Amino acid sequence: MQTTNFLNELEQVTEYWSPRVVGRVNDQFIKVAKLKGTLAWHQHDDEDELFYIVKGRLVIEYEDSQVELNEGDIHVVPKGIMHNPVAEEECWIALIESVTTKHTGDVVIDKTRSIEEQLGER
Amino acid sequence: MQTTNFLNELEQVTEYWSPRVVGRVNDQFIKVAKLKGTLAWHQHDDEDELFYIVKGRLVIEYEDSQVELNEGDIHVVPKGIMHNPVAEEECWIALIESVTTKHTGDVVIDKTRSIEEQLGER
Repeated sequence: MQTTNFLNELEQVTEYWSPRVVGRVNDQFIKVAKLKGTLAWHQHDDEDELFYIVKGRLVIEYEDSQVELNEGDIHVVPKGIMHNPVAEEECWIALIESVTTKHTGDVVIDKTRSIEEQLGER
Repeated sequence: MQTTNFLNELEQVTEYWSPRVVGRVNDQFIKVAKLKGTLAWHQHDDEDELFYIVKGRLVIEYEDSQVELNEGDIHVVPKGIMHNPVAEEECWIALIESVTTKHTGDVVIDKTRSIEEQLGER
């Protein structure tokens, strides 16, 4: 029976925008990441994506609005909705998303990490 | 786009062993609960169940072993495995489990909460 310390895993992350898989429950991965700057406008056609703010502040930009998230906040980006995460300062997060979810949807940029890369450091 | 503060939700829980649904991502509910004492031996035939320890200490008893969980720990109870959570002192947790998961599996005790009750206070 596997146990992982969530905060230890987060502390070990050294690269921004590079999620690390720390657990799986049913068909969902639990990931941790450190963010600073912006990722890319993208959407996940078939999968919701949950953001949990561990430390700092994150803005999720939508096409016609934005949501500001602070420590302890949970926010779900619904499937099929264009969004862009922006962190002015370093922000620590957890993500819950389907095992099939692609990092930046169908957009591929330098920051895009494959699921193998997200699993790779374990 | 809904945002929930996870810690505020947990603080509002007044009853031990009574999970409160605070979010949903894909086919999984995110729940918070306060625990003290013991629940019941049970299993979920088809669903894994993830425990995240927000505060305190929780022991998950298995038939031939046990796991001690402390603050920040994530632990997944695999589907089909008998288990019994025990909290000697008050413990605050989050759960991630399928929307179909029954609180105490096929065991029904006074502490058992239906999914409607788990959703009801929102």
